[in-house]
Amino acid sequence: MKTKKVTFADIAAYTNFSKTTISRYFNNPDSLTLENQQKIAEALTALNYKENKVGRILASGKTEFVGVIIPNLYMHYYSEMLNQLLATYETYGYKFLVFAGNEKPNVERRYIEELLAYNIEGLITLSPTIPSKELAQYNVPVVGIEREDEYICSVSTDNYLGGVQAASLLQKSGCDILIHVNAHMPETTPASGRIRGFVDICREQDLAYELILTDLGNTFKENHERISALLSQLEEKYPHKKKGIFMPNDTHANVLLNILIRKYGRFPEDFCLVGFDNSPISEEAVIPTSTVGQQIPVIAGEAMKLLSSLMEERKKRKPAPLEAPIHRVVTPILIRRETTG
Amino acid sequence: MKTKKVTFADIAAYTNFSKTTISRYFNNPDSLTLENQQKIAEALTALNYKENKVGRILASGKTEFVGVIIPNLYMHYYSEMLNQLLATYETYGYKFLVFAGNEKPNVERRYIEELLAYNIEGLITLSPTIPSKELAQYNVPVVGIEREDEYICSVSTDNYLGGVQAASLLQKSGCDILIHVNAHMPETTPASGRIRGFVDICREQDLAYELILTDLGNTFKENHERISALLSQLEEKYPHKKKGIFMPNDTHANVLLNILIRKYGRFPEDFCLVGFDNSPISEEAVIPTSTVGQQIPVIAGEAMKLLSSLMEERKKRKPAPLEAPIHRVVTPILIRRETTG
Repeated sequence: MKTKKVTFADIAAYTNFSKTTISRYFNNPDSLTLENQQKIAEALTALNYKENKVGRILASGKTEFVGVIIPNLYMHYYSEMLNQLLATYETYGYKFLVFAGNEKPNVERRYIEELLAYNIEGLITLSPTIPSKELAQYNVPVVGIEREDEYICSVSTDNYLGGVQAASLLQKSGCDILIHVNAHMPETTPASGRIRGFVDICREQDLAYELILTDLGNTFKENHERISALLSQLEEKYPHKKKGIFMPNDTHANVLLNILIRKYGRFPEDFCLVGFDNSPISEEAVIPTSTVGQQIPVIAGEAMKLLSSLMEERKKRKPAPLEAPIHRVVTPILIRRETTG
Repeated sequence: MKTKKVTFADIAAYTNFSKTTISRYFNNPDSLTLENQQKIAEALTALNYKENKVGRILASGKTEFVGVIIPNLYMHYYSEMLNQLLATYETYGYKFLVFAGNEKPNVERRYIEELLAYNIEGLITLSPTIPSKELAQYNVPVVGIEREDEYICSVSTDNYLGGVQAASLLQKSGCDILIHVNAHMPETTPASGRIRGFVDICREQDLAYELILTDLGNTFKENHERISALLSQLEEKYPHKKKGIFMPNDTHANVLLNILIRKYGRFPEDFCLVGFDNSPISEEAVIPTSTVGQQIPVIAGEAMKLLSSLMEERKKRKPAPLEAPIHRVVTPILIRRETTG
């Protein structure tokens, strides 16, 4: 099925332009008149020219490749974010080299270095494993999503507001005790804002609350065991109180929901439950679950828009250096479903 | 942070070899003695040489890129398959350009053509939209997973056996009527084997059965509405019979399960339910769900092994043409959980 390769010489002969002009058409088309661009474009069609982009990459430095690093595909949030990022291909034309880090910093480092050797134009990372200071030194535009971002550009949800929204909803649902379950995390992680928002509003409004910082594990099996144990503790500790539980994400909220439904055959009246993310599982759950919604399509869109502007700047003859990292914050949207009174 | 670029001339000066020898080291190392290879390798470390892979690609044609086309990330099966494919990076070193087709054949076609212009070495596709005859003409190694595969290599589950396993399990669980729900599909689609296996065993063993071929939709909302309607029909048609339902996949089985649990507060005794895939949702469901398990890690591993051998062959001086497409079949594993008696 191979067709004979059409060379610049063939195109030059066909159009009566010089090979230099043909080369300029590919590498700096604006240096030709529109009329001449049109003539060459028509010749390419007539000759059935197949572009070899590797040659173009060498000439222009533009690979149109973007690296994406996600921590895993187990968490529904990451899987949906990847989905939305991939969907930007139709808008921007960038192609995505995808890597699942699985908390192996050295494999992740090796992967990034490989991508750089292939001249990727930019990097989007949702993985927390490599510090932003180190990422900034790779000398390639980087946008972080929901991760520590001191030295890199980023797009994150307003997590503090999310924590406030969750606590307020649980209060309005008539809960006697507000409980937030989350992982221990450094203050530089955006998600830590949820904890601060939750605690601040509880203190401010003098609400009874408990903050449980614990490791729920990385697999479904671990999640299930630890959340079951947690539920037993809470039922023992607050037997006659209406318990409002704010889980760290929808995947974990769904594990708790399923344990409750299995135990009681319905969503028990002395519980309220709020997740975080608005990932598909929250709507698809056996009882559609209230959640602090991250606007995943907006975040993915903003991240690509920001990265795209950084990448475009790099292609200019004299790129302006970035004075300081740009941080975009997206407002969360509270979604009330059936697990809050 | 930029370091000065180390050139072939620098390496030649450092080692006292000619530039040609240095070039041979990168493009045809076996033409040098092991001792000389070692000397050059040490020089690279001493000089802190950073490889520019784009240059190597031009010289060797090896990009180490593999394109992956998935239909979507909504179905848990695709998301888990992608997860397992990405995990092979540590074994094979290939990097994955991922694309979600979303049933837009022309966008998919454009994407594949772009990938080819970048000299990807191979393609793995789970998407059914482009016929294998057309894919085979792209002149790049292609492995299909669970899709029509007449003209391309493939890895698929033994779907016929899967259909037999599901029907047998429902029979053993004491069901009075066996119902298989699936989509209309051409006989060339591997999944159609499930339907044939199910029907054959029911006929052979003279079991009461109903085959419902219908479009359940592509979004959760559509799935939920149509599966709710389907359940009402079945309850009306078979009021006093034990209904054994074999759903087309775990995502759809989970939608049905959640509707049942919501309606009855527990898994009703006059139902049995079997899904297909053993994707994570079947285990994470409110009632762990019986399923015909596709060995997703095995399929992903076999697909990469097969693709890798095809890609290696291409790199030989005289690649042997593939006489006929290779089709690997992986045995499904029946997983009995709590939704079958």
